[in-house]
Amino acid sequence: MELLKKRILQDGRCLEGGILKVDSFINHQMDPGLMKALAVEFVRRFAAERINKVMTIEASGIAPAIMVGFLLDLPVVFAKKKRPKTMADMLSTTVHSFTKDRDYDVCISREFLTPADRVLFIDDFLAYGNAALGASRLIHAAGATLCGMGFIIEKAFQDGGRRLRERGIRVESLAIIESLDDCRIRFRE
Amino acid sequence: MELLKKRILQDGRCLEGGILKVDSFINHQMDPGLMKALAVEFVRRFAAERINKVMTIEASGIAPAIMVGFLLDLPVVFAKKKRPKTMADMLSTTVHSFTKDRDYDVCISREFLTPADRVLFIDDFLAYGNAALGASRLIHAAGATLCGMGFIIEKAFQDGGRRLRERGIRVESLAIIESLDDCRIRFRE
Repeated sequence: MELLKKRILQDGRCLEGGILKVDSFINHQMDPGLMKALAVEFVRRFAAERINKVMTIEASGIAPAIMVGFLLDLPVVFAKKKRPKTMADMLSTTVHSFTKDRDYDVCISREFLTPADRVLFIDDFLAYGNAALGASRLIHAAGATLCGMGFIIEKAFQDGGRRLRERGIRVESLAIIESLDDCRIRFRE
Repeated sequence: MELLKKRILQDGRCLEGGILKVDSFINHQMDPGLMKALAVEFVRRFAAERINKVMTIEASGIAPAIMVGFLLDLPVVFAKKKRPKTMADMLSTTVHSFTKDRDYDVCISREFLTPADRVLFIDDFLAYGNAALGASRLIHAAGATLCGMGFIIEKAFQDGGRRLRERGIRVESLAIIESLDDCRIRFRE
């Protein structure tokens, strides 16, 4: 998606260790107009699937997910990284974050992820794919159907895309970073 | 706001200990159409303020905040509850959560909260007001101006509204719960 690639080149910053900072417009400060444009593109790409629910994981997936839900008039559910005291019947799985080098639990209420749900999962980043695989485990455990996964940015050199696609999951990423070597952003054409 | 009150009566659930569960449409599963309608109401109420930034705290403030930012074409920044490794020049404050009975830090990059910013703070719940007061400390420390605070639901019996208003902060809550005694939801008229 050209608009997004241009914005990444303009406002993204590359740090040592394969880190791409997009915190001025995606995951700390957010540009709502851009989020809406990204959501339109997700809707286009997944238009043929019979989706009836959008799912994400807190926190930076919420903005693009709510925009997709708004455009499609569908409920959006976000998996939580801490178990709320008041959540009773809950599905949970453990996810390892490479970026933060720690494990965390993600959980979702069975009430809002059911066998009737055909789910589009949306998140900001696809890196090693552990969060996305955690989401797919929750969807599987709920007996729901995973229709596809949409990411704003995929880091192709961190293997998550391959791991998801080889499981037969339909993955759509709006910008795919081929490499960040020498702190230069190279997109996959 | 009548639409919201009706929805709370229809889908909200009252638990022991003054807890109002709205996790089927606000803070776990979310209704994007409702979020947009709530954002329109926030825009109406704060239309006269010269706002140039919307701020919230992750995670359940993000959906209403991004909708307000979308309608007003303004950037939205969310304070984080964990300090990201890659955040350099950061403002931070400690907030006590009565609900979870623990302290947590909220932080925001100085890059995205500056003396030029006139901030509308948006969140889902106003209870004891500690998170909102934490946000106002961050705004003050950044030298930014707090134009107002908008909440989807205020629990009037938990005192946060009084604490904010007596500091001269303009507070607008779209539904004000007078009491949840005997697990009955009573709104302030």
